[in-house]
Amino acid sequence: MTKEKCEKDTICDTCNETSSCNQQEKEAHAQERLRSKLSHIKHRIMVMSGKGGVGKSTVSTNLAVALSMDGFEVGLLDADIHGPNIPMMLGIKSPHIENYGKGMVPIEIFPNLKVISMAFFIGDQDNPVVWRGPLKHTAINQFLGEVDWGNLDFLVVDLPPGTGDEPLSVAHLIKNVDGSIIVTTPQDVALLDSRKAVTFSRMLSIPVIGIVENMSGLTCPHCHKEIPLFKIGGGEKAAKDMRVPFLGRFPIDPEMVADCDRGRPFVMSHPDSEVAKVFQEVAYRVKTFVGFKEMGSELKKEKFPYHFKQQEVKR
Amino acid sequence: MTKEKCEKDTICDTCNETSSCNQQEKEAHAQERLRSKLSHIKHRIMVMSGKGGVGKSTVSTNLAVALSMDGFEVGLLDADIHGPNIPMMLGIKSPHIENYGKGMVPIEIFPNLKVISMAFFIGDQDNPVVWRGPLKHTAINQFLGEVDWGNLDFLVVDLPPGTGDEPLSVAHLIKNVDGSIIVTTPQDVALLDSRKAVTFSRMLSIPVIGIVENMSGLTCPHCHKEIPLFKIGGGEKAAKDMRVPFLGRFPIDPEMVADCDRGRPFVMSHPDSEVAKVFQEVAYRVKTFVGFKEMGSELKKEKFPYHFKQQEVKR
Repeated sequence: MTKEKCEKDTICDTCNETSSCNQQEKEAHAQERLRSKLSHIKHRIMVMSGKGGVGKSTVSTNLAVALSMDGFEVGLLDADIHGPNIPMMLGIKSPHIENYGKGMVPIEIFPNLKVISMAFFIGDQDNPVVWRGPLKHTAINQFLGEVDWGNLDFLVVDLPPGTGDEPLSVAHLIKNVDGSIIVTTPQDVALLDSRKAVTFSRMLSIPVIGIVENMSGLTCPHCHKEIPLFKIGGGEKAAKDMRVPFLGRFPIDPEMVADCDRGRPFVMSHPDSEVAKVFQEVAYRVKTFVGFKEMGSELKKEKFPYHFKQQEVKR
Repeated sequence: MTKEKCEKDTICDTCNETSSCNQQEKEAHAQERLRSKLSHIKHRIMVMSGKGGVGKSTVSTNLAVALSMDGFEVGLLDADIHGPNIPMMLGIKSPHIENYGKGMVPIEIFPNLKVISMAFFIGDQDNPVVWRGPLKHTAINQFLGEVDWGNLDFLVVDLPPGTGDEPLSVAHLIKNVDGSIIVTTPQDVALLDSRKAVTFSRMLSIPVIGIVENMSGLTCPHCHKEIPLFKIGGGEKAAKDMRVPFLGRFPIDPEMVADCDRGRPFVMSHPDSEVAKVFQEVAYRVKTFVGFKEMGSELKKEKFPYHFKQQEVKR
């Protein structure tokens, strides 16, 4: 259906020939363009949860940073249309998104980590995005098909909580998602929802890479005793019950909360911390899951912080 | 459009005359029925947040219980279709929802507190509700128009996070919501989203009753020192910035987490705790906001637990 003269990657709105195409041709072109863009992305990972506020965005951000620190080309798609917090966690403030023939240019936070988020398109950050499902679907479609991701080793998609429009749109548009990571806290209410997320993943034939347990205890900064705030071990139990791998747990760390707010990914700012090691382990598990065995034969033990300039040699 | 012979409150599916009505007549009847059911509900309160996991369901549950403890007739509608956790927080397990001519019978957890939730309609609790917006709209429509709420003083609606389909459906279907309560945690990422919720409320002409700050610090159970886990005071600052009332803050209390999981509303199980006092204060602010001044001239100081039998005198 796409015309001979059309360039595969050009967005119809910016094409000189746009007036000569009808709506049907444009839609066919959009589908072809989505297919083409996705064909340059080797692996697609969905980070999801049943319940909100369990730390999905924290896990997505740190996973993406950990992978990019390993030298992979990584894209991070913030698919939470109503609460797009990834930019804040990476310290990206009011960027200017350029738009040219091949689509929107994602923000390159590091040389090999590109980010796109709804937050880049909201002028006043107090303004809510009051959209129903179909508009959200269109936005996610554009984030996949009209963003100039280039060649990526990994696309990490940070989903909003639940099993509604956004995860469905991502799954249907990407088609073959390599795997999902499910984030939970150890509370019963969160576990109940994380089990739903596992079933959801299975219903859509998306392999579950595993469950990560966040807010797993807390060490008092004063007396250094353990406080089992939301209990501990529920995520591991849910993983066992649902027969999916358990990827690790990390405690609440007030330092991490502060780092999130300051826009510094913990895996980079505190690379030797226990929490960072969990993120590195999750990244390692993702790499081995998709078959990057050669780069992930053992969890990197070298000293961080990673200097991007030294490692700009790309795979 | 509704036929003369139709009973206003009867659900078309269960009506003997159903075959004699066309789709248009049935839709008109559904609208009329919704209007009629809502006319028996004096005040409608929405509990919302921008971000997930900030404790909306905890606030909704404890607010509803606090109001019912005051002797009001209260309905609690769990509008979180994907993660319906209200029943777990109230200890309601696999109930049988009866359905008769006037609609579904909500679960009467106490003589004057009725609850309806998607959780009552999912057989296996591991099963996710994989629905897009339109189906969710239909479900919420049925929860309002096809549930036999009877006469209520308050309907408390617990919304999922965000500013998408569910809050829009609730706002459009109820039409005149008395006010919204916005729950947040003091982290910057949560505050950003709570400001969006305030703007959303204003866009839909729903008065903001105020902001509640959850997870506002933590006292170490071992050394009793204060741990500012997610910082403290952000909710109050957001309220000031957005010029809406600040309703109060409550700390993380491991006991409350455990009570949530055990299905015991904190305001009832620990009525003398600081946290319960915040919920009572929120209930008081709601009452005064809607004009129940005669019952809320001062925050009740009597000893709990409340004995429902003693107070079954209804307004």
